[in-house]
Amino acid sequence: MKIAVDAVGGDHYPEYPVQGAIEALVKNPSVEILLVGPEDIVKKELEKHDYDASRVSVLHAPEIVDMDESASSALKKKPSSSISLGLKAHKENVCSAFVSAGNTGALLAVSMFTLGKLDGVIRPTIAAPYPTIKGMSLLIDAGANLELKPEMYEQFAKMAVIFCKEILGNPEPTIGLMNIGEETEKGTETHKEAFRLLSSLKGFKGNIEGKDILFGKTDIYLTDGFTGNTLLKFGESIPEVLKHILSETMKREKVPEELQKKIYELISISLSTFNYEEVGGVPFLGVNGISLVGHGGSSPLAICNMVLNAAQCVENEVNRKIVASLNQ
Amino acid sequence: MKIAVDAVGGDHYPEYPVQGAIEALVKNPSVEILLVGPEDIVKKELEKHDYDASRVSVLHAPEIVDMDESASSALKKKPSSSISLGLKAHKENVCSAFVSAGNTGALLAVSMFTLGKLDGVIRPTIAAPYPTIKGMSLLIDAGANLELKPEMYEQFAKMAVIFCKEILGNPEPTIGLMNIGEETEKGTETHKEAFRLLSSLKGFKGNIEGKDILFGKTDIYLTDGFTGNTLLKFGESIPEVLKHILSETMKREKVPEELQKKIYELISISLSTFNYEEVGGVPFLGVNGISLVGHGGSSPLAICNMVLNAAQCVENEVNRKIVASLNQ
Repeated sequence: MKIAVDAVGGDHYPEYPVQGAIEALVKNPSVEILLVGPEDIVKKELEKHDYDASRVSVLHAPEIVDMDESASSALKKKPSSSISLGLKAHKENVCSAFVSAGNTGALLAVSMFTLGKLDGVIRPTIAAPYPTIKGMSLLIDAGANLELKPEMYEQFAKMAVIFCKEILGNPEPTIGLMNIGEETEKGTETHKEAFRLLSSLKGFKGNIEGKDILFGKTDIYLTDGFTGNTLLKFGESIPEVLKHILSETMKREKVPEELQKKIYELISISLSTFNYEEVGGVPFLGVNGISLVGHGGSSPLAICNMVLNAAQCVENEVNRKIVASLNQ
Repeated sequence: MKIAVDAVGGDHYPEYPVQGAIEALVKNPSVEILLVGPEDIVKKELEKHDYDASRVSVLHAPEIVDMDESASSALKKKPSSSISLGLKAHKENVCSAFVSAGNTGALLAVSMFTLGKLDGVIRPTIAAPYPTIKGMSLLIDAGANLELKPEMYEQFAKMAVIFCKEILGNPEPTIGLMNIGEETEKGTETHKEAFRLLSSLKGFKGNIEGKDILFGKTDIYLTDGFTGNTLLKFGESIPEVLKHILSETMKREKVPEELQKKIYELISISLSTFNYEEVGGVPFLGVNGISLVGHGGSSPLAICNMVLNAAQCVENEVNRKIVASLNQ
């Protein structure tokens, strides 16, 4: 099975994507890699590695989408980007999936444009791993759809459940609806109707609130993309904020340097649960194909994990199961 | 000037409200206090204190609204609660303001029902102090209005500015619109139109994102009540989460007990910025009267500060200034 990897996506290209892709070859012997990006850059990077050349090929894509470029610019102005050509290759069955640590907005837009929607899907969505004290929960929608209809909450929940079961290895994921209170009749009319629709789903635990998030109250956090995106960015800021206020306190309290070092070490270990760098990417759920996106700061291990996740999406027929679940 | 204080509001009644009210008498000689609650409870609590009896009176209100009681239950089923009778006394000019550390939802509902809206106000709102590394910012809407029209963002911004200037002593508050990106054209159509309306306000700094919140990027954070309420509860959970993960780490790393103690001490000092207990309450903005609500866990100092803030709202003619600002 051939997995296309965006060789020029993320904050550390081409180094990390190429290294991660090659690590995936070792971990899954049935995987082949198609590296997508400017040929000269990719080939030069490949020279640094020892690998089975019969399982690696390169697709020349001369353009690179910047991390802060708008989705519409990527879509319209860069038809020869690694994202556009990688997804085109997937659409044409040259490869079974496409993965990238690049620009999420651009990846979503080009994935939707190139691959289209699965049968019965109202809108594709993007989930994101959310760090909690119990490990990673899955936040959905993470920013693709700012306002949701009640039926979209239901579809997103069903798609997230399949992802949790098939890829994250959680056979019985629990689902919480983000709301302003625990009681059934909380929130807008949309939330109340969503609650009603979700009530028939196995694993639905009712409403959850902002205070439950970091405690990992459920495996899946369902919310609109506006709130989801805000919470995601908020969560990512916590480690830096903490280090900042702690360092100010230690300066003010004249804590000896050696003790400071020890404390920073403990804080770093404590906050490692908030570290996105090892998380292996998530698929755009609801698109007619397998397209995964990872955090811009993805490590080689994260990219390797993303390739393995993509292979699992193919092997476990995630999309066939999504269509079956939505249309049952 | 007589300020009514809910003697049976908050997590620590009647002790903290009565103590806080009496402290306010000392700090502002022009203040008189009307304690509202079951007469026997209030009088018994008053016996513990030394105070100028000529400046303290009691309004008997036999019913108590629970902290988790629904707003409609408080409104319909408890016409003789401290909240209902205290606000009625204010409406009838028996007192100049009403303050409570009780049930926020009930307080908002009864305040709106009893006092009505100020001239030109679309919807009253509730702001909340939000802890940041630079001190408290003001989050508005904190949960009163789950969905906003563009014009409501503008009105809320104007009311928040007056509160910052007149009560928080910030002569030039900055305003940020919570959004999913910094660029002008981000968010829903509502956000884009709100951005346009806000652009003419002094102090408007454009869009802010989830990652900016804890850094205190602006003095006022403008958002819908759904996102605001979620962010507020999320923020309140941070200290507990941190202490939890740090304690787990220290156990696992076998940190000696004495060092653990020292570290907890430093963490506590660092997180004191997140402590709501000293914050002196905020008014329901847009109601035709002065009604302030404090955190349920308000300390006596917080309640004292809330009484002083209420007096300042009266002295500085906050409501007259709001009407002038909205209708100019």
